[in-house]
Amino acid sequence: MRDSADAHKYEQVAADVTHLVESGTFRPGDRLPSVRHLSRQKAVSISTVLQAYYLLEARGLIEARPRSGFYVCTHLPTALPEPDISSPEPDPTEVSVRELVTRVVLVDTHNPGLVQLGAAHPNPALAATRKLNRILNSIARRMGDESGSYDYVPGCEGLRVQIARRAVAAGCSLAPGDVVITSGCTESVSLCLRAVCRPGDTVAIESPICFDALQSLEVMGLRALEIPTHPRDGISLDALRFAIEHNTVSACLVISNFNNPLGSCIPGDNKRELVRLLARHTIPLIENDIFGEIYFDDQRPTVAKAYDRTGLVMLCSSFSKSLCPGYRVGWVVPGRFREKIEWLKYTSSLASPTLSEYAIAEFMAGGGYDPYLRRIRRTYARHVASMSQAVRRFFPKGTRLTRPAGGFVLWVQLPDSVDSLELYGRALAAGIAITPGYLFSAAEQYRNFVRLNAANWSDEAERAVERLGALIVGQKPGF
Amino acid sequence: MRDSADAHKYEQVAADVTHLVESGTFRPGDRLPSVRHLSRQKAVSISTVLQAYYLLEARGLIEARPRSGFYVCTHLPTALPEPDISSPEPDPTEVSVRELVTRVVLVDTHNPGLVQLGAAHPNPALAATRKLNRILNSIARRMGDESGSYDYVPGCEGLRVQIARRAVAAGCSLAPGDVVITSGCTESVSLCLRAVCRPGDTVAIESPICFDALQSLEVMGLRALEIPTHPRDGISLDALRFAIEHNTVSACLVISNFNNPLGSCIPGDNKRELVRLLARHTIPLIENDIFGEIYFDDQRPTVAKAYDRTGLVMLCSSFSKSLCPGYRVGWVVPGRFREKIEWLKYTSSLASPTLSEYAIAEFMAGGGYDPYLRRIRRTYARHVASMSQAVRRFFPKGTRLTRPAGGFVLWVQLPDSVDSLELYGRALAAGIAITPGYLFSAAEQYRNFVRLNAANWSDEAERAVERLGALIVGQKPGF
Repeated sequence: MRDSADAHKYEQVAADVTHLVESGTFRPGDRLPSVRHLSRQKAVSISTVLQAYYLLEARGLIEARPRSGFYVCTHLPTALPEPDISSPEPDPTEVSVRELVTRVVLVDTHNPGLVQLGAAHPNPALAATRKLNRILNSIARRMGDESGSYDYVPGCEGLRVQIARRAVAAGCSLAPGDVVITSGCTESVSLCLRAVCRPGDTVAIESPICFDALQSLEVMGLRALEIPTHPRDGISLDALRFAIEHNTVSACLVISNFNNPLGSCIPGDNKRELVRLLARHTIPLIENDIFGEIYFDDQRPTVAKAYDRTGLVMLCSSFSKSLCPGYRVGWVVPGRFREKIEWLKYTSSLASPTLSEYAIAEFMAGGGYDPYLRRIRRTYARHVASMSQAVRRFFPKGTRLTRPAGGFVLWVQLPDSVDSLELYGRALAAGIAITPGYLFSAAEQYRNFVRLNAANWSDEAERAVERLGALIVGQKPGF
Repeated sequence: MRDSADAHKYEQVAADVTHLVESGTFRPGDRLPSVRHLSRQKAVSISTVLQAYYLLEARGLIEARPRSGFYVCTHLPTALPEPDISSPEPDPTEVSVRELVTRVVLVDTHNPGLVQLGAAHPNPALAATRKLNRILNSIARRMGDESGSYDYVPGCEGLRVQIARRAVAAGCSLAPGDVVITSGCTESVSLCLRAVCRPGDTVAIESPICFDALQSLEVMGLRALEIPTHPRDGISLDALRFAIEHNTVSACLVISNFNNPLGSCIPGDNKRELVRLLARHTIPLIENDIFGEIYFDDQRPTVAKAYDRTGLVMLCSSFSKSLCPGYRVGWVVPGRFREKIEWLKYTSSLASPTLSEYAIAEFMAGGGYDPYLRRIRRTYARHVASMSQAVRRFFPKGTRLTRPAGGFVLWVQLPDSVDSLELYGRALAAGIAITPGYLFSAAEQYRNFVRLNAANWSDEAERAVERLGALIVGQKPGF
């Protein structure tokens, strides 16, 4: 939706530098031209060059060294091939992930003895928790007794104003009244499914997709119609078109920006077409944008909601990945289903936590959110690049790897001989939590895939990836 | 379940004094024997006499005057007759309260221009919000980044320990592992219904019952089978027995202690028999005990869960009435349905707000909860007594009124000619929010009833009751 000459300049500079590196003009370890120098040479501003360098840093191509300048990375990412577009079962499937989710997610996640490469939690040290807690405390003092009162649907108005304002960058023109606050994105998606589906209905979903979506289908007795999904461009529109012409589909569910686990981002034109296609069949689109703010390029990707002319798109998100999971604050922009969603929210959990809502609203209004997001975007991009390099170095030949454009997870396709559940067991015994591919499909499509979370990248995580690699090839790890 | 000689002594003294007042030995305005004097005379401790006097004060019979002693109240409550046991429709009914709830509850509740006698919110000035906020802040500092992490089902262990300990007083032997933390009692009840019912099923409920229970039925497409309910003893077991023998009932839902709106408390023996009766038919009991800690007598009433031998009782509660609604923390003890409830909670909203859970746990562990509860029980009992007197004084002949044994709401039966919805409209125009009886039945049973909330009793509330009385008899109010 947005475009600017500046953005083009910045990408151009980054492309030029990439070319210089790829062609060998600058080799691993070489110092790159200084920012000032390049700025004069390209006739662009200092900040444009810095933006270009930061982008390349995020991509793992170059690195900053304090008080010295930018250098070509010693280990250049000669990228692994990406997984192919998925080819899931063409028929609707009963969902049954409960047992595995209970075992893998609920048990391992809070085991402090494990190196956590499993659950897609944000890095606690990067979350804005401390800052938010301070704001929360100051609001608590100011509000006094009122801070303990119910804050009924649609929830804190100040927060809805902030959410509506930010949505402009994603291409949406929203009024605060279009937004309903929830207790997190899981509740948002669950409310949307309950608003438009009945038990036994079929929901078209991206495949792979995070198990929390599958759980929501399972608990409601809905069937999953898994749609082939491209590792960069997300859901295949051709496949979706075919699927909805040959099945009765009650809703479509996508993680439009940075699908978990793929990291794919549906291009703007595809989003527009996706919305049109579904509107022609009067099928509601449940759009999960929970990772939308954690983009690695220079622009906030649009949301499908931006192209919604019929009110059939229900945009779901939360602050759990981009700010603080424990605050339990999310939202939904339910379009034509607003009354139903408000009623479902009200009857399911009455209200969301009052102080959490006010604290986030004040944090956003105070201007702290943008600098904070810029920081975590850069960090997560670096972590993803570092983990990608480690996978490339330590995993066996035949491994394929996604190139996420945002978020903080990687989706790894292992050689066909590897069973991810068996690997999961051996990893656990070695003190490492990973998420086996089985959890990302209703039909056990991804037995030789694993999802790795790069959010907490560290030396320890790197050693864990090395050890995983050794476990995969069946060697005794060398440490 | 508990019993003590002391409790008997204290009630005995209260009964003796009540007799002296009712027989005219002491008349309105008379000074009662001093505490010391009565203590010697009855051969009981000072504190026993004080307890007796506090109880009578709570009942509106006597009043303390600073530095002077206890006096018989000038306006003695010659109690209004109670409503009869209810006689709702004998057949299951589709529930359809949404429109009215949306209009009455969601719109009026947060209108600061109204005297709030409607929504059953606790008094914000009595809630422990400020104290909890201080604890929350100190925990936030101590926990740092961790305070922002997900706290998955079943939720904060420290809090589950505290809940299990308190349950002893209600007759239950629970392990912390029996408790699942939720985002409030509404979520607890909603999860229970989803665990044991399917759309179209029939649920036996007390009648009248608060509309939030009816909403939960409506949103799931469940039918209400309303059971006659006694204004003091709660659900009629005979009627329930007949009903479940003549209908297919998937669950039974009661507010066992201090039904909202009746204030009824199911006696211990009836609770035992209720549990047995349902167990014989393998019907799960969903027990809402949200008001259980706000009792006016000297003992915590038991919960039906205390008599549960088969795991069919699902005990639901929260801290919203007894501590702080805005924290959004409740719980459920789901018996044999634990796994299902945990799964439903996990897939509906993932986790509850982390800091809120920890703050409440610490408040309870620190010993602050009991003195706090003693204080609010006394205050609410006084407020209920005061509002009862005002209703007696200002409402027309033919009015009937409950005598709640706990909680903070009154259920008022008005003369047959009064339509509570019409009265609601006129009250609103006069700046007063009340809750019309229509909201407490799926079959519009209570058209000439209103629920009044006494929690925020004040001079302004008293003037509002006076004005309501005038509106009922159709007079121009005199102020």
